[in-house]
Amino acid sequence: MVDILHRVGIKSSVAEVYSALTTAEGLAGWWTTDTEGEGDNVGGVLQFRFPPGGFDMKVLELDPGKRVRWEVIDGPEEWIGTQVNWNLDRVGDYTIILFEHQGWKEPVEFMHHCSTKWATYLMSLKALAETGKGAPSPDDIQISDWH
Amino acid sequence: MVDILHRVGIKSSVAEVYSALTTAEGLAGWWTTDTEGEGDNVGGVLQFRFPPGGFDMKVLELDPGKRVRWEVIDGPEEWIGTQVNWNLDRVGDYTIILFEHQGWKEPVEFMHHCSTKWATYLMSLKALAETGKGAPSPDDIQISDWH
Repeated sequence: MVDILHRVGIKSSVAEVYSALTTAEGLAGWWTTDTEGEGDNVGGVLQFRFPPGGFDMKVLELDPGKRVRWEVIDGPEEWIGTQVNWNLDRVGDYTIILFEHQGWKEPVEFMHHCSTKWATYLMSLKALAETGKGAPSPDDIQISDWH
Repeated sequence: MVDILHRVGIKSSVAEVYSALTTAEGLAGWWTTDTEGEGDNVGGVLQFRFPPGGFDMKVLELDPGKRVRWEVIDGPEEWIGTQVNWNLDRVGDYTIILFEHQGWKEPVEFMHHCSTKWATYLMSLKALAETGKGAPSPDDIQISDWH
């Protein structure tokens, strides 16, 4: 098993970042405008859609202001069964996100792509929380020929 | 052992990207302006300096237009002995970089930070090769309280 890891610090409140991870409106502001579902109750399902396809995530855990965990229940084969974990902490003026997309079976080329892509989406989340404007799909940053 | 993985695609020639990885001038254009040393011969040492410190890399392998491998011989404790591998390929109009920073002993918080930071530097390398202007340190993108 291999994991994608990231860390960003956001000059915004923990509550605002938590909201951007648990409401369809918040998620639509930084990941994909085509977001539907229930992110604020355990067992709820979030549906994220992008031009090439999408992901369904089941909410596994919610600890307000501290932790959000999702399990991928539908999407690309490599993603199914993986978990996306968001750990929040407050350090000085920053809300720190420790991010893990864990449980990849193999370090395939698609995993390399998703690692870079997650970084740009985390920067989009940071921009949303700090300035009110993120860069969600379909206006996300293009990193390669895969989009 | 855990690894940082990334993939970017650059609309520029393989030769130009290879040059940006093997010459002090190229490296200074996307990673840190304070770059010195010999990146174009195996056994050469590159010295990268940033406001908080730096890294010394020994060139382990050079396969022009295909592959560059470095070993970290000085820098933060967590980096020493790790390897940075650049694999280049041509796909359509793109030079594809598969990037690995491999051999981390533990998935510490600093590794999460470096994973996100590598992504932003890879986007800086992409910008340099596509537009002539990257965002090297000290004018790099700030991702958190750690800079």
